[in-house]
Amino acid sequence: MASRFPRIAFVGSGAIGRYYGALFTRVGENVTFLMRSDREAVRRLGLKVKTPYEEFTLAKMNVAENSRDIGPCDLVVIALKTTANQQLDALVRPLLHEKTVILTLQNGLGSDEQLAALFGAERILGGLCFVCVNRTAPNEIVCLETGSVSAGVKCLVGDDLAALRWKKLVWNIPFNGLAIAAGGITTDVVLASPDLAGLARDLMTEVIGAAAKLGHSIPLSFIDQQIESTRTMGAYKPSSLVDYLAGNEVEVDSIWGEPLRRAERAGARVPCLKMLHALIAQVTKLRLSRPD
Amino acid sequence: MASRFPRIAFVGSGAIGRYYGALFTRVGENVTFLMRSDREAVRRLGLKVKTPYEEFTLAKMNVAENSRDIGPCDLVVIALKTTANQQLDALVRPLLHEKTVILTLQNGLGSDEQLAALFGAERILGGLCFVCVNRTAPNEIVCLETGSVSAGVKCLVGDDLAALRWKKLVWNIPFNGLAIAAGGITTDVVLASPDLAGLARDLMTEVIGAAAKLGHSIPLSFIDQQIESTRTMGAYKPSSLVDYLAGNEVEVDSIWGEPLRRAERAGARVPCLKMLHALIAQVTKLRLSRPD
Repeated sequence: MASRFPRIAFVGSGAIGRYYGALFTRVGENVTFLMRSDREAVRRLGLKVKTPYEEFTLAKMNVAENSRDIGPCDLVVIALKTTANQQLDALVRPLLHEKTVILTLQNGLGSDEQLAALFGAERILGGLCFVCVNRTAPNEIVCLETGSVSAGVKCLVGDDLAALRWKKLVWNIPFNGLAIAAGGITTDVVLASPDLAGLARDLMTEVIGAAAKLGHSIPLSFIDQQIESTRTMGAYKPSSLVDYLAGNEVEVDSIWGEPLRRAERAGARVPCLKMLHALIAQVTKLRLSRPD
Repeated sequence: MASRFPRIAFVGSGAIGRYYGALFTRVGENVTFLMRSDREAVRRLGLKVKTPYEEFTLAKMNVAENSRDIGPCDLVVIALKTTANQQLDALVRPLLHEKTVILTLQNGLGSDEQLAALFGAERILGGLCFVCVNRTAPNEIVCLETGSVSAGVKCLVGDDLAALRWKKLVWNIPFNGLAIAAGGITTDVVLASPDLAGLARDLMTEVIGAAAKLGHSIPLSFIDQQIESTRTMGAYKPSSLVDYLAGNEVEVDSIWGEPLRRAERAGARVPCLKMLHALIAQVTKLRLSRPD
């Protein structure tokens, strides 16, 4: 079967990029990874992927140091952290021909619009990942919860990307946020404290209210659902907490900053989101300036 | 001149208790300190007091290990941290006779009422300290900003203690709170961030609103005054931050918890105070459980 996309590039080859890129590679797609760290290890050793359901190794992964070495592709998948979005133009432009499709899997809000402004809205697709993937060695990743997208991957197709992004934020804003702002705690600790769990609900209510002002209707019953499904996750470390604890940049602007700006522009009342954003921005800045 | 209070005891002999007790001792009052840490050093060496204006040493300080060794006094000054208030009954009762006056200099809300419930409201006086005193050696304290109370001390007498306590909280709630919740920062860092300074103003507005609901009128212009006077303090560490950084207990309940409960009971809207309390409670609990 001929691929719809003869040549595919992954921009941003952290854990998420490697995971989805590996799934594409495994089903025979021609994927090249724009990879910075671990490039030589992956080139030499390939990549081992562990999930709760299986384990496989790709002996050969195409990796490149810069976009010009890859050249024009038919599909470019963006799995870059949003903190590096100022590099999108330089990283992506050499990968484009007239009909290249760009799929962004990035967190939060803002990337869809930034890509559309740079490369034209008609070629941009947005995707949301509901997975938990961590790098456990230079050539190994572990996926604790497998989720959406394609190529042998569970995938839901929605028809309102912005609404889906807000829906994902209903979880990310409180849980990624409180995990950091309350001192570096897992989701079970948030739920175990009546005050923090109440705060998570208040934040969810604010996010749903902001989404409503922007025309995206999310039922309030979604809050209970999210709390319940979080309960099943145990001592879960949200991705932002993983970044924070590792001393890496946290996606502050796309997860809290841009949603806050859009909420305020729409006239939504979001005092807790505003406060959470201010605290996270400061705490993460300090962390980068004085890691321990 | 015969003292109105022939025998005076200080309960809680941290930096604040030592400072005011020393001032009383210096003007000839008969003061005994109920002292836990540094007792032998102070007994042997006395106490050195440094302020921006002078430096003096008291060669002899009366210190005692427990209240029964002191016995009934005419004035009992409480400078205990509010985190130890469950010990008030045991510490204070042996110091009382029928007419003993009790003056509490403690932070935040709740101590006045707890003391009144234990020992009778008619003998309780409340005082507020606007000072910054730190222990710099077992027998030395440094006072960076001298403030109110009596015995050669600048002292303002107010006629509405509760209103004054709320007025003090207009500063303590945001600045002590954000110093901890934003990762351990001084007041100048709060003011340097437009987001955090805005949050401080939002919190002040909430506290003034709550005080108003409780019948204490504080003009909104007080906010600008407080911001401006904080600007002159430079890289100031609020007392709660000093406690937090030293790994000591923070007065979470009297500074944020009790004001929050009273505000909510009065029907005031205090979303930022509520959030700040939840975060500080968690962060300080973590700090005590895993000091570094």
